[in-house]
Amino acid sequence: MNKEQLRDLILRKKSVLCVGLDTDINKIPQFFKDKHEKDDVVFEYNKRIIDAVLPYTIAFKPNLAFYESRGIEGLMSLKKTMDYIDTKGEEVFCIADAKRGDIGNTSGQYAKAFFDPTQSDFNFNAVTVAPYMGSDSVSPFLAFEGKWVIVLALTSNPGADDFQLHTFTDDDKLFEKVLKVSSKWGNSDNTMYVIGATRSEMLKRVREIVPEHFLLIPGVGAQGGNLEEVLNLGWNKFGGLLINASRSIIFASHNEDFDTAALEEAKRMQAIMNSFISSVS
Amino acid sequence: MNKEQLRDLILRKKSVLCVGLDTDINKIPQFFKDKHEKDDVVFEYNKRIIDAVLPYTIAFKPNLAFYESRGIEGLMSLKKTMDYIDTKGEEVFCIADAKRGDIGNTSGQYAKAFFDPTQSDFNFNAVTVAPYMGSDSVSPFLAFEGKWVIVLALTSNPGADDFQLHTFTDDDKLFEKVLKVSSKWGNSDNTMYVIGATRSEMLKRVREIVPEHFLLIPGVGAQGGNLEEVLNLGWNKFGGLLINASRSIIFASHNEDFDTAALEEAKRMQAIMNSFISSVS
Repeated sequence: MNKEQLRDLILRKKSVLCVGLDTDINKIPQFFKDKHEKDDVVFEYNKRIIDAVLPYTIAFKPNLAFYESRGIEGLMSLKKTMDYIDTKGEEVFCIADAKRGDIGNTSGQYAKAFFDPTQSDFNFNAVTVAPYMGSDSVSPFLAFEGKWVIVLALTSNPGADDFQLHTFTDDDKLFEKVLKVSSKWGNSDNTMYVIGATRSEMLKRVREIVPEHFLLIPGVGAQGGNLEEVLNLGWNKFGGLLINASRSIIFASHNEDFDTAALEEAKRMQAIMNSFISSVS
Repeated sequence: MNKEQLRDLILRKKSVLCVGLDTDINKIPQFFKDKHEKDDVVFEYNKRIIDAVLPYTIAFKPNLAFYESRGIEGLMSLKKTMDYIDTKGEEVFCIADAKRGDIGNTSGQYAKAFFDPTQSDFNFNAVTVAPYMGSDSVSPFLAFEGKWVIVLALTSNPGADDFQLHTFTDDDKLFEKVLKVSSKWGNSDNTMYVIGATRSEMLKRVREIVPEHFLLIPGVGAQGGNLEEVLNLGWNKFGGLLINASRSIIFASHNEDFDTAALEEAKRMQAIMNSFISSVS
């Protein structure tokens, strides 16, 4: 999916909502596990969530860690989940939140893992990548036409303070340097950035450096970032935002109504997005 | 395996050699693929390599990318490989070269993926982690007693120049800041660092900051780092080094003798290590 298609999807659905399928098997309600004791319970849970939230959602972002923690069985849940999204026949942007990155020839292997279904089991639109190892750790992902790399810039966790906010002698903070340098490896048609919503005061600065790029914004749900503020500060002419919520949607209720609760929370967020998008487009 | 056990292993085998099982299926010789067309060819190849190099090796380091690039099938090759190493009944340090790292609750899931065989399929001694997201991205790995986290500090690839060598206003380069800050999250009993051998002139500086820690040194083989220099600059009272070679060993020959060639290259490197270790211990 290219930038224009993503913009069209955003304007059509009046949404920049990305649902994080961080399906921790230990958080799935017991009644549901009992009901599906002979099935792939994570996949069954994901199906119900996907069906519920899809009308309000333009993107899904499974975090690989929640699948890898269950070994090969977990990866099979992920594969079935991604295949299921395909069967819906709806345009939706799929992000492998994998935070990969290695020396060039190795990053090329990761790119195959997520982008090349003839080699691996997955065909994501985008993958998140850590910038620490520099250009050759990111560029192999950019070699895949029509695919996106989403570079970590300013993350939403407490540890972001440890390095990302330190200032270099040329006055750039590390996250600013990452934006400035890595935006030259690709362009706004194949590169996005992770910018945590818990740092929304920084969004203005981010938009000065990368006005044209899409930003993937985690931290609006369980981590407490402000949705309206993010929309106001981050929106650009292509939409330019994918706002992610994971736990606050997929585990909105631990009762029988968990999918309705997920739908309601997705709908609540999309209503705010709808109102904003309608006012600017 | 704790630090004392690792030191004893090093002194007993007179080796700090780590063999990188970066088994790119496209580099496996055709005759071998033909012979094993009905088998798991990567696993069969790894078995031959493991059998050949084990006498000279104290550690194995599969890079996850080379397995993930083949999807779930690739992960099954990796599981079989690690199980095979177990069956050898020899003490050997196993590193998941995965370069993971995410917000706290998510890194906890990655830790399970690599350290907890009751949850996933793997039981590695150590995992490589990218430091960009800071303390809470690393600390969940440290919660596993007897396991190690290997933090990327100064890598061996050209892209290391992009960020790692930039200097902060307090005069620390990024990699120095990573060493100083992250060495306080754990200690030299549970934290190691990746320091590329292609930057051996920096090893002196690294040893000033973390004299007690183990260093995982890639880049001695195909990437061209100098083995003697690394031994001289990096050795400490616990040995303190794991020197990795991947391609230069596992693809030392593309003929029938590929395992003998791997053995010869491992033996050649171990002889240099043996001579150094005998002179200092």
